[in-house]
Amino acid sequence: MAREQSNERMEKLVSLCKRRGFIYQSSEIYGGINGFWDYGPLGAELKRNVKDLWWRHIVHQRDDVVGLDATIIMAPRVWEASGHVDTFSDPMIDCKTCKGRFRADQIHEIPCPQKPSKMVSECHGEKTEPRAFNLMFTTHVGPVQDDSSLAYLRPETAQAIFVQFKNVLETSRQKVPFGIAQIGKAFRNEVTPRNFTFRSREFEQMELEFFIKPDEVIEAIHGRVAVPEGKGHPGEPQPDWGWQMWHQYWVEERIRFYESIGLPRASLEEYWQTPEELAHYARATVDILYQFPFGTQELEGIAARSDFDLSQHERYSGKPMKVFDDQLRAAWKELPEEKRQALWQRYYEARLGYLTRSGVDASEAGEMARADADALAKGQYIPHVIEPSAGVDRLVLALLANAYSEVTETDDKGRTETRVILRFHPRVAPIKVGVLPLLRNKPDLVRKAREVRDLLRPHLTVFYDDSGSIGRRYARQDEAGTPYCVTIDFETLGEKDPALKDTVTVRDRDTAEQVRVKIDELPAWLLERVR
Amino acid sequence: MAREQSNERMEKLVSLCKRRGFIYQSSEIYGGINGFWDYGPLGAELKRNVKDLWWRHIVHQRDDVVGLDATIIMAPRVWEASGHVDTFSDPMIDCKTCKGRFRADQIHEIPCPQKPSKMVSECHGEKTEPRAFNLMFTTHVGPVQDDSSLAYLRPETAQAIFVQFKNVLETSRQKVPFGIAQIGKAFRNEVTPRNFTFRSREFEQMELEFFIKPDEVIEAIHGRVAVPEGKGHPGEPQPDWGWQMWHQYWVEERIRFYESIGLPRASLEEYWQTPEELAHYARATVDILYQFPFGTQELEGIAARSDFDLSQHERYSGKPMKVFDDQLRAAWKELPEEKRQALWQRYYEARLGYLTRSGVDASEAGEMARADADALAKGQYIPHVIEPSAGVDRLVLALLANAYSEVTETDDKGRTETRVILRFHPRVAPIKVGVLPLLRNKPDLVRKAREVRDLLRPHLTVFYDDSGSIGRRYARQDEAGTPYCVTIDFETLGEKDPALKDTVTVRDRDTAEQVRVKIDELPAWLLERVR
Repeated sequence: MAREQSNERMEKLVSLCKRRGFIYQSSEIYGGINGFWDYGPLGAELKRNVKDLWWRHIVHQRDDVVGLDATIIMAPRVWEASGHVDTFSDPMIDCKTCKGRFRADQIHEIPCPQKPSKMVSECHGEKTEPRAFNLMFTTHVGPVQDDSSLAYLRPETAQAIFVQFKNVLETSRQKVPFGIAQIGKAFRNEVTPRNFTFRSREFEQMELEFFIKPDEVIEAIHGRVAVPEGKGHPGEPQPDWGWQMWHQYWVEERIRFYESIGLPRASLEEYWQTPEELAHYARATVDILYQFPFGTQELEGIAARSDFDLSQHERYSGKPMKVFDDQLRAAWKELPEEKRQALWQRYYEARLGYLTRSGVDASEAGEMARADADALAKGQYIPHVIEPSAGVDRLVLALLANAYSEVTETDDKGRTETRVILRFHPRVAPIKVGVLPLLRNKPDLVRKAREVRDLLRPHLTVFYDDSGSIGRRYARQDEAGTPYCVTIDFETLGEKDPALKDTVTVRDRDTAEQVRVKIDELPAWLLERVR
Repeated sequence: MAREQSNERMEKLVSLCKRRGFIYQSSEIYGGINGFWDYGPLGAELKRNVKDLWWRHIVHQRDDVVGLDATIIMAPRVWEASGHVDTFSDPMIDCKTCKGRFRADQIHEIPCPQKPSKMVSECHGEKTEPRAFNLMFTTHVGPVQDDSSLAYLRPETAQAIFVQFKNVLETSRQKVPFGIAQIGKAFRNEVTPRNFTFRSREFEQMELEFFIKPDEVIEAIHGRVAVPEGKGHPGEPQPDWGWQMWHQYWVEERIRFYESIGLPRASLEEYWQTPEELAHYARATVDILYQFPFGTQELEGIAARSDFDLSQHERYSGKPMKVFDDQLRAAWKELPEEKRQALWQRYYEARLGYLTRSGVDASEAGEMARADADALAKGQYIPHVIEPSAGVDRLVLALLANAYSEVTETDDKGRTETRVILRFHPRVAPIKVGVLPLLRNKPDLVRKAREVRDLLRPHLTVFYDDSGSIGRRYARQDEAGTPYCVTIDFETLGEKDPALKDTVTVRDRDTAEQVRVKIDELPAWLLERVR
């Protein structure tokens, strides 16, 4: 029953998205293309707002994060270093009878194309053993199509940040701890795209790589490493924070962000990955989940990735990824010998662990780890990283699902009507204000309404609408999620009460309450409420 | 000589872009990948500003344009309809000796890879005849790689607009004339990427498709078609405008846009394509050119594309692309019979021309054109389109080239130094204001400076810098193109003159003049100058 309700809610949402121009199927007139979705006029604005707010929150409002805008196609060696060429795959089974290809873990739930009464696992078709199917889209760069020109569409935006780490460090006047943020498209050739835009083949990510000092460095400089003392936001970053503090900080910052754009904390869950689920290099990963109509699913993952990524690119590119830290160098000189040895040893073991897990030959790994630990003693290290990685499309879908509500109203003739109100936080609403002349055939009203529109437009997204009854126009804006409607009426013209001249009615989407505001105070009045 | 100066200017610009974090080579640590460029912290902000300003100008400031955000990978049939599968190609020649592949029109200028003293055209290698090489990147969607899963990375953003035209029309409450705008990545597998970011393989476009009524419809409704009476901006759009007025309008609007972000009109040229250069469906195309250091090259093309694109998609998808126009239907009924016949005939011939040029069989084309003309008489037609299509990366490069200037200064010890000032228009400048405490070791100055930073940050991109002499910090911001620097000094603290308490020095990048502004008036003072 609960499931049926969810399906019904989801169907209504998908239908609204199409009907109001939030989301269409890509290439719909050609029958669509599975796993690809386009954003229509309202959807494009909603998505823009989400990305802008993330960028402002993560980059503009901070001193310690800068942006990057890298290409989707990169040198293929990037994806060898990142591990995607070898391990970013699903096991697939081919059926030699029907020529279908199926995910090995789904053959019990997918009907046989030739005999749909049976599942693929039960049908008589001869099947191959599972084989790894890489999820990266491939292409060829340059005029010749062969192995040498093979390239990939990035499956994540993160790697470009690691690859350009040194360039950014050297040109941005930043020092560790600092972060690099990027928003952009990524592609995964999902075998089974599903749940509307939630799991699609082309999607957009908002990723931050926040580079921090290894705990051994913090301890060498500050004598201790601050660790979380409980739950909740740990406050302003401090120099003695180790990776656990930074990780908790970013989890809490990200939840604050979601709250700031209208997702109630109660609709979010934190899920700590178990040791078995964690990638071998990850220290901890927290997924922030949202209660979608189709189930509670991931919006964002915040991973403490150790120094794995930069280390991989250092090994694969042969270009040093270490930073020099004069505080560390100075502090190291002052450390007692046994402390030095203890820190050297711990760092050595961490590096050795990384190297051996990454397949480096044992004898070579020992030598390399020793060199790394010796470098530490001279003030050099590869930064660790905390990675908050969010999906734009998922967030847009969560905002739509969260905003969706229905009201049933009975008019004075006794007719009842159920209509949709999208209760977006004003910050993300595609249109901030509707401007409505009471009547379209009164030139004075229309002239004044256009003045109001032109007054607001430099500051806010405005929708001007003069067709239909005022009630219908309110309803249309409710359905688009517009938080305020401004109506220009005869009072505005001063025809009834001179005191009301040059005032307008402002209607609140959620309460339907109306207040009168002076036109010259209107931009500030609205801006205060929608920012 | 002029050429050498240009090369030198270009080299300096490329070097500055790397040094200050505007633009890096993609995947640089892996030796790069030819034709792909990443934007660093300053470049990412500059590019963001350009795209935001375009979107505000084209979408938010108007009632008659809405946005779209479609996928890069679309159904492959889209590119058959658009003509890209058949004709978007360069002729290539293979050398059987060295296995190289070369553009047929460049073999006289490219040295032989094996014998660089000779050009490819002169060497002894056995060459093939020229063959068409399609410039679209290909990939495969889904788990099976065969012809049925072939897909393309879009070579332009425009087609998605045509493909979603009906969805947008039906969900956005727009009527022709109106436009759909899109910003996004596009890909062309250029054989010879060159001129830094100007011709790259992955790039970003800002495209508007502005849909208008065919001239026959205008004439039926208004009795006449307004045509340009001279050069210059034709003013506010009028109902009786034909395609020529709309075309001129958009050319002038786009030039105004470029002027509004700092490209002087004198640096731009209008180039009208000759009849031989025009695509067969185009009525007119104006290229807006900018005087780049490497030559005068296209920033944007504004094409009057007739009804070609929507007609193609109507034919290929079988989905109607016609709109119904009640004004036309009403007007048609009132027309004298000979006028009806004349308009019917003109429309019939235009449609027949399109159909036969598009390869439709003559007898079939006649029947289809007749049906189209009959539909016109009932108020239905396929809209024509004006397409202003701009390249983001080219514009960013033009803004950098335009902003680049050097000053040579002699200090009081007689040392001369040449340094770079990027004289960006404040609207596009990556950082709007530098906030600089006079000294970093005076807690009162630092505290006050941070207050000022936090006061400005909600409104503007701020760079806080406390390291080095104030002169060096000014110079750093000049080189980043920051229009204003705010210095917090002892006057700010009220230590010298109580009247100057809570005022700051604001320095202008271009004049180096300094004025004192009250802190509480600072946000408004700056916003007025940078918006």
